[in-house]
Amino acid sequence: MAPFSFRLSHRDGDARRGEMQTPHGSIQTPAFMPVGTRGAVKGVTMRQLEEVGAEIILGNTYHLYLKPGDSLIARSGGLHRFIGWDRPILTDSGGYQIFSLAEMRRIREEGSEFRSHLDGSLHMLTPERATDIQAQLGSDIAMVLDECIATPAPLAAAREAMERSVRWARRARTRFLQLKDPDGRPPGVTVTNPGQAQFGIIQGGIHLELRTESVERTVDIGFDAFAIGGLSVGEPADVMYDVAGHVARQLPPDRPRYLMGTGMPDDLIESVARGIDLFDCVLPTRNARNGQLFTRSGPLSIKNARFAEDTGPPDPDCPCYTCTRCSRAYLRHLFMAGEMTGSTLNTVHNLFFYLDTMRRIREAILFGTFEKLRQEFRQTYSRRPHH
Amino acid sequence: MAPFSFRLSHRDGDARRGEMQTPHGSIQTPAFMPVGTRGAVKGVTMRQLEEVGAEIILGNTYHLYLKPGDSLIARSGGLHRFIGWDRPILTDSGGYQIFSLAEMRRIREEGSEFRSHLDGSLHMLTPERATDIQAQLGSDIAMVLDECIATPAPLAAAREAMERSVRWARRARTRFLQLKDPDGRPPGVTVTNPGQAQFGIIQGGIHLELRTESVERTVDIGFDAFAIGGLSVGEPADVMYDVAGHVARQLPPDRPRYLMGTGMPDDLIESVARGIDLFDCVLPTRNARNGQLFTRSGPLSIKNARFAEDTGPPDPDCPCYTCTRCSRAYLRHLFMAGEMTGSTLNTVHNLFFYLDTMRRIREAILFGTFEKLRQEFRQTYSRRPHH
Repeated sequence: MAPFSFRLSHRDGDARRGEMQTPHGSIQTPAFMPVGTRGAVKGVTMRQLEEVGAEIILGNTYHLYLKPGDSLIARSGGLHRFIGWDRPILTDSGGYQIFSLAEMRRIREEGSEFRSHLDGSLHMLTPERATDIQAQLGSDIAMVLDECIATPAPLAAAREAMERSVRWARRARTRFLQLKDPDGRPPGVTVTNPGQAQFGIIQGGIHLELRTESVERTVDIGFDAFAIGGLSVGEPADVMYDVAGHVARQLPPDRPRYLMGTGMPDDLIESVARGIDLFDCVLPTRNARNGQLFTRSGPLSIKNARFAEDTGPPDPDCPCYTCTRCSRAYLRHLFMAGEMTGSTLNTVHNLFFYLDTMRRIREAILFGTFEKLRQEFRQTYSRRPHH
Repeated sequence: MAPFSFRLSHRDGDARRGEMQTPHGSIQTPAFMPVGTRGAVKGVTMRQLEEVGAEIILGNTYHLYLKPGDSLIARSGGLHRFIGWDRPILTDSGGYQIFSLAEMRRIREEGSEFRSHLDGSLHMLTPERATDIQAQLGSDIAMVLDECIATPAPLAAAREAMERSVRWARRARTRFLQLKDPDGRPPGVTVTNPGQAQFGIIQGGIHLELRTESVERTVDIGFDAFAIGGLSVGEPADVMYDVAGHVARQLPPDRPRYLMGTGMPDDLIESVARGIDLFDCVLPTRNARNGQLFTRSGPLSIKNARFAEDTGPPDPDCPCYTCTRCSRAYLRHLFMAGEMTGSTLNTVHNLFFYLDTMRRIREAILFGTFEKLRQEFRQTYSRRPHH
């Protein structure tokens, strides 16, 4: 298995076109990762994911650790085999879910203590444990455990969380390297994907000076690449763009940059314009289940009565399965009737739209027309539901 | 568009191998119809249905009439276009759903008055109205409105319902023929599939003498083919087989025979052995969503803890998408986590199993080995969950 690598092939302004290599294949960047929370991207099969063009998916360590458990998955041969997906997988560390989902969370220097949202059972996730769990899952890219805090956070609280995240990152890296060493490997951990890479996470809230310090100290530790955490958590879009751009400019140019948890289609383009290479977000899948379809002119709420007899496709420009086979009227009917097939069809379209947007972005960078695409997008795409 | 026809090609004992022609293509019989209640077979897309080999699906007139309404579907060009399915569709008459789902049902000679289970609104379904609705839906095969009653019913009640069903069948046939006549067509009804066929329904509960009378009187009216209603409603399997066989023997041999709402896999084989050609049932789809998978040795409850680490496929002999790509452990995990993708994967397998069972039945009849298949099935298939 090839180890992790990244090759930057084209630049267009700050936008970058490249390719990541992982043990389970390559990913063209900028790339978007559908979120496969608990071993499935909600509503679709793996083949449907392949067909919409997903090159990599994200798995949530918090969920998989609680159910069915990383040890069971390791005994099954790792997450790829367990879920039947041969392409690359990135796993998060669980930090964000502990922050957003778990009950009675208590952060200590040792790690994050929390109660499961499923059964109230008590758990302790340390930087080492989060690294071990991901080694057992065998994802191609593992993330370090970081401390996520509510925003906007006062400077002192943001500094404290950033500094702890740096100390945790150092411990996670040490553990990761121990797991790589067949002789020094800690007992009880099955490394199911020896070529796994590990990304560090930049924190610091919306405070640029903290972000700069986080970059310096996290880069010093030495990771395969770096992610930007703590954004897309309620701050205005412009602030997110500013912070992402500020961090991206300081990150090593020869490593991919991953903006975690972002975002709306226009967020993707604006972030690529600032040097971001990798994204994940639940919006295309979650909004699909809520009846929102993304189109080139903006989101469309399929439950709207005006679609009741609309025999046209959801997005006239879209060649996806849903748009070639289903009318707005049919999708509205399925949504109103609560038919799960409607969620599947909406998800197929939204994922295709997101992944197709990334394809258009990559092509524009290749041909040096990214700024034109960005302006076009600004003129034609509106965040407000256009129907 | 070719009108409806049926060609019987092989017999093996009472089992029959044939082909139905409809305006949307042919169906190899004996055939099983997945149930697409409200314009979707729950949990799967039309392409998944094609891939498991469905040649015809069933749509529920009651549900489609209430939502989105037969007039809306007619304006969209008919049910095939509305749901994006180009192959044959059979619609039931709504009688069974009024009996099993609707509130405050009142049967009068004119028709069946009921309140919608969705919003309590008052509706009247007459034999003529049920025929009109199905003409607007434009299914390839329409069913007459019949009166369904609880079983076991005393002879007098069963006779009354049977006799009313015969009178209703005559009215439905008259209306159907009026709709076929471009000059005599009742106003306000859009015939979206001029080649539609109409099946009569034999009633009479478990009383053989009533069944005989129902056959004589219904056949006299003249339909494209005949269905057996009022079975699979709680009576013992042997009683169902006896009644189905009794009716089948008296029906015209040159017309297909449809046993409505049946059944378990062994019911299909036993009914084919008695001369039945066509089936529909919610079991493969509904049980899939409840975590029950059909296999050659019997049903399997995927939530059973013993499957937690079972890396084998649901059914080792099955070449379906689910069995080639997913382990029992993965399907169990998806079921326990409540992931809708699990319902989809289970549905794909169960439908494949049902349709593959029909393929095996058809092949056995062709080669004169149906009795051997039936004995094999009896020996290897157990209704009791084997795990």
